[in-house]
Amino acid sequence: MANPNVKEATKVDSESFRHVLKDIDTFIFDADGVLWLGEEVMPGSPDFIDYLLNLKKTIIVLTNNATKSRAVYAKKLAKLGYNPQLENNVVNPAAVVADLLNRSGIKKTNKKVYLIGSQGVIDELDNLGIEYFGTGPDPISRQHDTRPFIYDLELDEEIKDVGAVVVGYEKYFNYHKLMKAANYIAQDESCIFIATNTDETCPGPDPDTVIPDAGPIVAAVQCACGREPIVVGKPHTPAFDYICHRWNINPDRTMMIGDRTNTDVKFGRDHGLRTMLVLSGCHQVEDIVDNQVNERWDMVPEFYADCLGALVPDRKTA
Amino acid sequence: MANPNVKEATKVDSESFRHVLKDIDTFIFDADGVLWLGEEVMPGSPDFIDYLLNLKKTIIVLTNNATKSRAVYAKKLAKLGYNPQLENNVVNPAAVVADLLNRSGIKKTNKKVYLIGSQGVIDELDNLGIEYFGTGPDPISRQHDTRPFIYDLELDEEIKDVGAVVVGYEKYFNYHKLMKAANYIAQDESCIFIATNTDETCPGPDPDTVIPDAGPIVAAVQCACGREPIVVGKPHTPAFDYICHRWNINPDRTMMIGDRTNTDVKFGRDHGLRTMLVLSGCHQVEDIVDNQVNERWDMVPEFYADCLGALVPDRKTA
Repeated sequence: MANPNVKEATKVDSESFRHVLKDIDTFIFDADGVLWLGEEVMPGSPDFIDYLLNLKKTIIVLTNNATKSRAVYAKKLAKLGYNPQLENNVVNPAAVVADLLNRSGIKKTNKKVYLIGSQGVIDELDNLGIEYFGTGPDPISRQHDTRPFIYDLELDEEIKDVGAVVVGYEKYFNYHKLMKAANYIAQDESCIFIATNTDETCPGPDPDTVIPDAGPIVAAVQCACGREPIVVGKPHTPAFDYICHRWNINPDRTMMIGDRTNTDVKFGRDHGLRTMLVLSGCHQVEDIVDNQVNERWDMVPEFYADCLGALVPDRKTA
Repeated sequence: MANPNVKEATKVDSESFRHVLKDIDTFIFDADGVLWLGEEVMPGSPDFIDYLLNLKKTIIVLTNNATKSRAVYAKKLAKLGYNPQLENNVVNPAAVVADLLNRSGIKKTNKKVYLIGSQGVIDELDNLGIEYFGTGPDPISRQHDTRPFIYDLELDEEIKDVGAVVVGYEKYFNYHKLMKAANYIAQDESCIFIATNTDETCPGPDPDTVIPDAGPIVAAVQCACGREPIVVGKPHTPAFDYICHRWNINPDRTMMIGDRTNTDVKFGRDHGLRTMLVLSGCHQVEDIVDNQVNERWDMVPEFYADCLGALVPDRKTA
């Protein structure tokens, strides 16, 4: 782990950041709360990205949102005014899931993936020609059956034909899907169980409204089948392996910048990267302090800043 | 806790059980795997109950299944040939939930209960005149909305009118119900969050089929709302409090008999009761040994027996 003894988070501004910058070759950015907020660009962030690109830094965008494919994210970045160089450097759990399944050799076995997930995973599986089924509305069958429990499950595919179950956010999640996923996983030890991410909730336009993300859905399937999934999203390792594999980064000279201590900062700390929290999204200085009090050093960043825009040098000093 | 030093489980038969019997006034029985198996009576169990009733023992039946009301269980016991005296002595999580809500004073506040649950809870809430809503099919609205997340929730009742959320097994559970439950709980600190039980799966006619019980549904809601529920079923305390309140038992002279170490035996151990595992249902001697190896003494019974029928004295020796 890089800098394991750094326990105080240091606030940086455009001036002090210039000294940090010379030790970093690659920057990995979280998206929501860092590059954008919902559908709006985060003011100043495109300028900061340009500043780093001018210095020949490698930029990777790593989101935990698996509902959209990398192609959709690339379009969004362009629309919000980001440098076109970013468009091929987006990583999301959907891409990592597809890559993981592809490398597991699932295509050679002719087995399919049972998918609880959204368009992002569908698109990435399509990209690699991996067969899947299960997404979309799945009405509870036998609604006329007055017995409280569903004893006889009508599986869409036989247990032996399902090589993996992928669970992520899907608004059509229901008891039937829960039961199918649990049975495919529990009845075949060799069936791979992958979760896109385990975020409990996702941010929305109304801060009071709880929008359950993939976490609760994964928790339900895990509880029913009694097996732990491979979790792909931050702070877990598959996304890191994917990045290493594709960009051959040097962790000592790579910085993870995000707005969450429990996903972004922890991802960086757990994989030996330098870390920075920006206060333009979810977590604030109080959260850093809480993590220090609780001795959760894996969630205390090395640096923090108000936002990316605050790190862009003034023209006169640049 | 009764007999904290008893770490070895002792096998009993009809002869040795006679010596245990004289120290016990009240027996609490689990139902499935003990008194019946699915829809069939457990052979010998009705005779054992008659034997205890003849000795003037108090008999209580405590199930973790909240899908049926106590009245339905009473009918089932009668149909399977059990002594009619049992019929008023059935306790299930549905009854405990209704009692808990009633004693919380929810009726005086004119607030309602948002219910993810089955007929058992419905009947018990009706018995006590507690208002509820939410059960049954709840189609995801705005299926034409192409946005992956549901941002604007259409709540059936306003947050301020919901005094409690009760979560148990319901085959119509879906993402919409998850989101509603999470919002009622998270948006009002005073909203009571109760889970009927947290069994991961329930037994069914096909041992290979995983039938998710309330546990996965509770896990999903808990993950989304970030609050822990009051869990009513075994091994938790509300069911014990309910029994103490109604029968005024002496824990030292009460024995819990069930087929599961993690619910029945743990319930007994955690509340200072004597304990016995019967091997006619879920857990076996290997499970007791595993618990001993893992030093989970709270899940090691004081006694075990093949089944209740094995404890009935032969006519000639009785």
